[in-house]
Amino acid sequence: MQQGDIAAKFSAFSEHWRPKVIASTNGQEVKLAKVQGVFPWHLHEDCEEMFVVWKGRFRVEFRDKIVELGPGEYIVVPRGVEHRTAADEEAEIIIFEPAETRNTGNVVDETFTAPQGVVI
Amino acid sequence: MQQGDIAAKFSAFSEHWRPKVIASTNGQEVKLAKVQGVFPWHLHEDCEEMFVVWKGRFRVEFRDKIVELGPGEYIVVPRGVEHRTAADEEAEIIIFEPAETRNTGNVVDETFTAPQGVVI
Repeated sequence: MQQGDIAAKFSAFSEHWRPKVIASTNGQEVKLAKVQGVFPWHLHEDCEEMFVVWKGRFRVEFRDKIVELGPGEYIVVPRGVEHRTAADEEAEIIIFEPAETRNTGNVVDETFTAPQGVVI
Repeated sequence: MQQGDIAAKFSAFSEHWRPKVIASTNGQEVKLAKVQGVFPWHLHEDCEEMFVVWKGRFRVEFRDKIVELGPGEYIVVPRGVEHRTAADEEAEIIIFEPAETRNTGNVVDETFTAPQGVVI
């Protein structure tokens, strides 16, 4: 059975921008990511992407606005909408999206495109 | 755009066992529930159900074991597996499951079956 402790899972890795799957459910995945710096602009043609901040300050930037989020705050990025994420200092983020969603969406980036399906 | 603060959303209601939708994403819903006492035994034929504890102590009971969870701990209840949830004192829970999932699954209970799609 899939079960665990989110804080312990976050303690188990240190890389930035490399989502780790903690649960697969109904075709979706719940992933944890540590982030710092600025991620590339991209969009997801076919799915929405939900972010919940676990720790730290996190920013979701759109072409026309910036949304700042702190612990316990969330946002759903609509499908097809260009965005990039950013954090001035390290932040910990929970992501809820369909399995096999590429983190950089419609973009392939040598640095930021992460392996999919990495379970922790 | 769907965005908000989980703590503020929890502060906005007080009923027990009445899930409130805070986000709809990719056919799924993210719901908040306050719980206290013992919920009826039931199962969900067609979907998994993920619980994350936000506050308090929460129990998921199966016919062959009991899983105790505290803040930040999570479990995915497999589809078709009978279970009931419980909390000795009030607890706050986040639920991830497909839209239109009845909280009592295969059971209709006069007290516990909650209206669906109540957005907060």
